[in-house]
Amino acid sequence: MGSQIEKEKPGAALSYRDAGVDLDAAERAKARLKSLVASTRDENTLSELGSFGGLYLVPPGFSAPVLVASADGVGTKLKVAFAANRHTTVGRDLVNHCVNDILVQGARPIFFLDYVALGAMDEAVVTDIVSGVANGCRDNGCALLGGETAQMPNFYAQGEYDLAGFIVGVVERDRVLDGSRVRSGDALVGIASTGLHTNGYTLARKIVFDHLGLGAGDPFPGTGRSVADELLEAHRSYLRPMLPLLDAGKVHALAHITGGGIPGNLPRVLGPSLGAVVHRKSWQAPAVFEGLRHGGSVELEEMDRVFNMGVGMIAVVAPADADSVVASLRASGENAWLLGEIEPGQGVRYV
Amino acid sequence: MGSQIEKEKPGAALSYRDAGVDLDAAERAKARLKSLVASTRDENTLSELGSFGGLYLVPPGFSAPVLVASADGVGTKLKVAFAANRHTTVGRDLVNHCVNDILVQGARPIFFLDYVALGAMDEAVVTDIVSGVANGCRDNGCALLGGETAQMPNFYAQGEYDLAGFIVGVVERDRVLDGSRVRSGDALVGIASTGLHTNGYTLARKIVFDHLGLGAGDPFPGTGRSVADELLEAHRSYLRPMLPLLDAGKVHALAHITGGGIPGNLPRVLGPSLGAVVHRKSWQAPAVFEGLRHGGSVELEEMDRVFNMGVGMIAVVAPADADSVVASLRASGENAWLLGEIEPGQGVRYV
Repeated sequence: MGSQIEKEKPGAALSYRDAGVDLDAAERAKARLKSLVASTRDENTLSELGSFGGLYLVPPGFSAPVLVASADGVGTKLKVAFAANRHTTVGRDLVNHCVNDILVQGARPIFFLDYVALGAMDEAVVTDIVSGVANGCRDNGCALLGGETAQMPNFYAQGEYDLAGFIVGVVERDRVLDGSRVRSGDALVGIASTGLHTNGYTLARKIVFDHLGLGAGDPFPGTGRSVADELLEAHRSYLRPMLPLLDAGKVHALAHITGGGIPGNLPRVLGPSLGAVVHRKSWQAPAVFEGLRHGGSVELEEMDRVFNMGVGMIAVVAPADADSVVASLRASGENAWLLGEIEPGQGVRYV
Repeated sequence: MGSQIEKEKPGAALSYRDAGVDLDAAERAKARLKSLVASTRDENTLSELGSFGGLYLVPPGFSAPVLVASADGVGTKLKVAFAANRHTTVGRDLVNHCVNDILVQGARPIFFLDYVALGAMDEAVVTDIVSGVANGCRDNGCALLGGETAQMPNFYAQGEYDLAGFIVGVVERDRVLDGSRVRSGDALVGIASTGLHTNGYTLARKIVFDHLGLGAGDPFPGTGRSVADELLEAHRSYLRPMLPLLDAGKVHALAHITGGGIPGNLPRVLGPSLGAVVHRKSWQAPAVFEGLRHGGSVELEEMDRVFNMGVGMIAVVAPADADSVVASLRASGENAWLLGEIEPGQGVRYV
């Protein structure tokens, strides 16, 4: 969208504003966000907000820099944000999700772009959304290089929107994590999630709002927190605790536990003839997952395939390094533990 | 989304599929697209479809490579695709729009990622959409490095979807087009659009569908083509005709004429004390724009600020190079002409 000025038109003449697109409001939201976005800039960011494309110098010091890129959306967690009328957290969810998605290939993020689509422009809501994105970028040391706010009348219900993001990171070519370093007997280190992160919300909402008939302000079964607080808990970024371990070469593979759970994600980063044993008793799924399981009479196997069940990321490390990796993660403030090990075979076996 | 296998559940137990998310259909669509996506790979593409993030080696041969990134959506042109039930063209629209957005900073595209969001999975529609994206990528020599297909029940009306894209290109740092090369007296070379491209559709649809009461199969006023053919005409990419001119250093600035028209976009690429004179009689707006203007009694000034009016891109060049630039573009199959010139001042003045 450009910087045009809309005027009221006389008579029957149609204008863009009549048709439902308010470009002034979009410009005002952009102006309000300018300093926040500027706070995410770093020494390699060459462009200002509002240029056609964002400019970012490939960071010097790499001999064969590989760009790692990923696109993702927030998914139906947005519906919980709508119900709670709380729009400042979903942006951070999105950034952290994307950061973790490229971290598992060994990359640290360099820049991010967002896409916000809504039916009618609401400055306050857009400011909340993008401030969440910008805060997430700043926390991860990643420039918010650009984005698009699309006004699409009759696409989205009143007060609703969609939010997607796109991340680019960089890694030295010979440091890409591609599964080739994983060996049978390697240890699995689990790192705790902070809740559902951004996956399984279509089922979770069906259970909580439809099946149990709860509202956003009601207490979530068994946790003492509100439904909104429980279901909007932020997706955790594992960048800062993992970077020193990646730099030290301690990590053979990383799996981000998203949709598909451990069985859907861990095998994606292992070699073709390797499987994993996961010790169920090594951790206790947080109460939010028990609440969902009981509330929807969901079978355990289905829970395992839809939700992260309290495990946000799994690091595959040499058995001799397992204790020091757990200690390092704990020292960084993470809840980490020995979750299982790699074995010949394929897929995930719970014991 | 992962690769989990859904099963029918007995009794009252809830499952992800019950809640409206069909992961099998998503996997089938992905499998059908695999060879098409593979056809967009180049020697720097290091990852396979389905990995967490796409991997792309920074192309060698640059001394200070600058990445240029942009995010965009198709906007409400999608509603025309829904009305016409034609989903193969909007992907190319999106890619070409993004390619042009970074071309104006001197960058050639290296990779692209798409985001498709829909209420319920429809393999055929998703295959059509993504095949359009992949074809657009191939035409522009750009790898389709990844993407996300999000199933979001109750977000989108039956048969509707949203589509956004993210592009990354590269340019040598001292070849970035930033407006600093533009001088008073420089010539403006206009390059024809192929129609509305992807802007002004909220107003165009209001005129055509609401005000004139036409359907997608009806003849568009004054053009002899159907409404669907006229309004779904593809957004043109100017990459191939512009690359030799950029390589030869002939281009002082480029403006992609999108939402905001010439007055909203051309000033964005000029210096702070430079304006432009545009000669209205140097070209004739295509019949589709006249049809919209008369159909909606839209004032000319509003038309100029909402639509490209037949000018898809403007190149700012030295006056001595203007004729050879026009000749080069024509030799590449473009309709190009002398549109005006740069003058001291600011904004766009039509004469």
